[in-house]
Amino acid sequence: MITIQFAARTARWAEYEAPLRAALEARDLQYRMANYTDEAQLPPAEVDYIVYAPNSHLQDFTPYTRCKAVLNIWAGVEEVVHNPSLTQPLTRMVDHGLTQGMVEWVVGHTMRHHLGMDADITRQDSTWDRHVPPLAEERPVTILGLGALGTACGQALTRLGFPVRGWSRSPKSVEGIETFSGDAGLARALEGAQVVILLLPATPATENVLNAETLRLTAPGAFVLNPGRGPLIDDDALLAALDAGQIGHATLDVFREEPLPSEHPFWAHPKVTVTPHIASETRASTASTVIAENIARGEAGQPFLHLVDREAGY
Amino acid sequence: MITIQFAARTARWAEYEAPLRAALEARDLQYRMANYTDEAQLPPAEVDYIVYAPNSHLQDFTPYTRCKAVLNIWAGVEEVVHNPSLTQPLTRMVDHGLTQGMVEWVVGHTMRHHLGMDADITRQDSTWDRHVPPLAEERPVTILGLGALGTACGQALTRLGFPVRGWSRSPKSVEGIETFSGDAGLARALEGAQVVILLLPATPATENVLNAETLRLTAPGAFVLNPGRGPLIDDDALLAALDAGQIGHATLDVFREEPLPSEHPFWAHPKVTVTPHIASETRASTASTVIAENIARGEAGQPFLHLVDREAGY
Repeated sequence: MITIQFAARTARWAEYEAPLRAALEARDLQYRMANYTDEAQLPPAEVDYIVYAPNSHLQDFTPYTRCKAVLNIWAGVEEVVHNPSLTQPLTRMVDHGLTQGMVEWVVGHTMRHHLGMDADITRQDSTWDRHVPPLAEERPVTILGLGALGTACGQALTRLGFPVRGWSRSPKSVEGIETFSGDAGLARALEGAQVVILLLPATPATENVLNAETLRLTAPGAFVLNPGRGPLIDDDALLAALDAGQIGHATLDVFREEPLPSEHPFWAHPKVTVTPHIASETRASTASTVIAENIARGEAGQPFLHLVDREAGY
Repeated sequence: MITIQFAARTARWAEYEAPLRAALEARDLQYRMANYTDEAQLPPAEVDYIVYAPNSHLQDFTPYTRCKAVLNIWAGVEEVVHNPSLTQPLTRMVDHGLTQGMVEWVVGHTMRHHLGMDADITRQDSTWDRHVPPLAEERPVTILGLGALGTACGQALTRLGFPVRGWSRSPKSVEGIETFSGDAGLARALEGAQVVILLLPATPATENVLNAETLRLTAPGAFVLNPGRGPLIDDDALLAALDAGQIGHATLDVFREEPLPSEHPFWAHPKVTVTPHIASETRASTASTVIAENIARGEAGQPFLHLVDREAGY
């Protein structure tokens, strides 16, 4: 019998309990599992694994004397890796659902704008207006950021027929994507783009990468998708470009302040779609599979997946 | 100097003139070209190629004594192949834009329903409701019809991560798709499907393939996409299934009567999206490339692409 302590905020337990039990049962693991905040606490000295989120109330690992591993459900471990009471092996979450979810959001909203779906979805009359959209091969897309997410999205769009350009600060080569880098490359990457997708990290160097100057480089009426980070866009410059028609529509998933304040002009703007930071999210279903895999490995004496290097901090 | 007679309805000339000229010029062909209905007619005896639609006013090919080929811009040739005055070689249109456009419509509307985009697009307030959609791998899709279009759509959806089942009347095997056939296979293909896509031909055997009985087999709240043929659906059964909640939404591109009559309940139904038969359309841009290729072949004495067998009739 394996004893598993789930230690995260209550909302996570509601989300994870069923998929975790399903993933553990799929591996024929005999276990008992409880949430840390339940009244019926598991005795710490009997716990074999802690499934963990760094904002849990569990912050003292000292009583977990036989615990074989702390299995983080977040990708980031910076808020736990330096906890001095943690002496057990720590794993971070590498969830294919996070990249896959991003690809699905980016492909979905690119296709939505490409096909001009909003007119069909919101049509109030019975007008049979046979406006045939162009083909993907006639719709140039530019992705700013060629990390794991930007590359995966770019390749999915390439497979659908879009000509894709990509930009990163330092030079990169990605099959099927025309790549540019550096300040000079940014203008060449954006010039004439009909869809611009932001997937850069938020750093001082990338802040306001879409601003009054760079927004002028796209094709008139271009679509902006931001599933990356809020500070990549100069909000006022984007609103001005939307009102001028230089940008046709913006679909934004991330913001400088989240939740996006109800008085922010993005909410009511007819050319802005707000999605509530859902493009890239660890999924309980896929994350649970990773947790169950690591518990099975621990029981079989095999090395854990995604083990954190405590010295390096990740 | 090559002389090209364009012979189709006036709306087609407006659509084709620029892309045809661009495609001819891309091949460095020296040519003159005019529309059949223009006042300045080209002398028939000087015409080298006729770019043709069967509903053109040009129905007597006898005066075109030096014409090397009649290049049809429609996929279908049944309305011209038996014209007794036609002695010139006839080609039909095989346009990759037709399949590609269908794949784009199907992928786009599948992703739209999968991500639940309509709520984001039509949101009237500033509610930050973080409802994260499932992954594509958790959303079973079933395609009825495994011809060229159904296969291409199924494979595009497979590449995006959807588990895809396909059904056809006679058994077929398609890589990456779980296939079913015949009456017994239909129930197994539809059972639990969350998205059902209709890409069957319209025949007496496929009429009303989605009816009160088969609509009960899907997962509750499933999405129906019909870019195939109008008669595949029993309209009244679909409306009843939508009202009962068994079907969550239907996005329909084809109808028993087109344009869809303004009094038809599909127009006003809140769970139906009408698109005006745009999913599968020959594109002037890609079709023009095929026409220019065939003219270049004719000038070089090479065999024409997509030559019609007059005996077989296609």
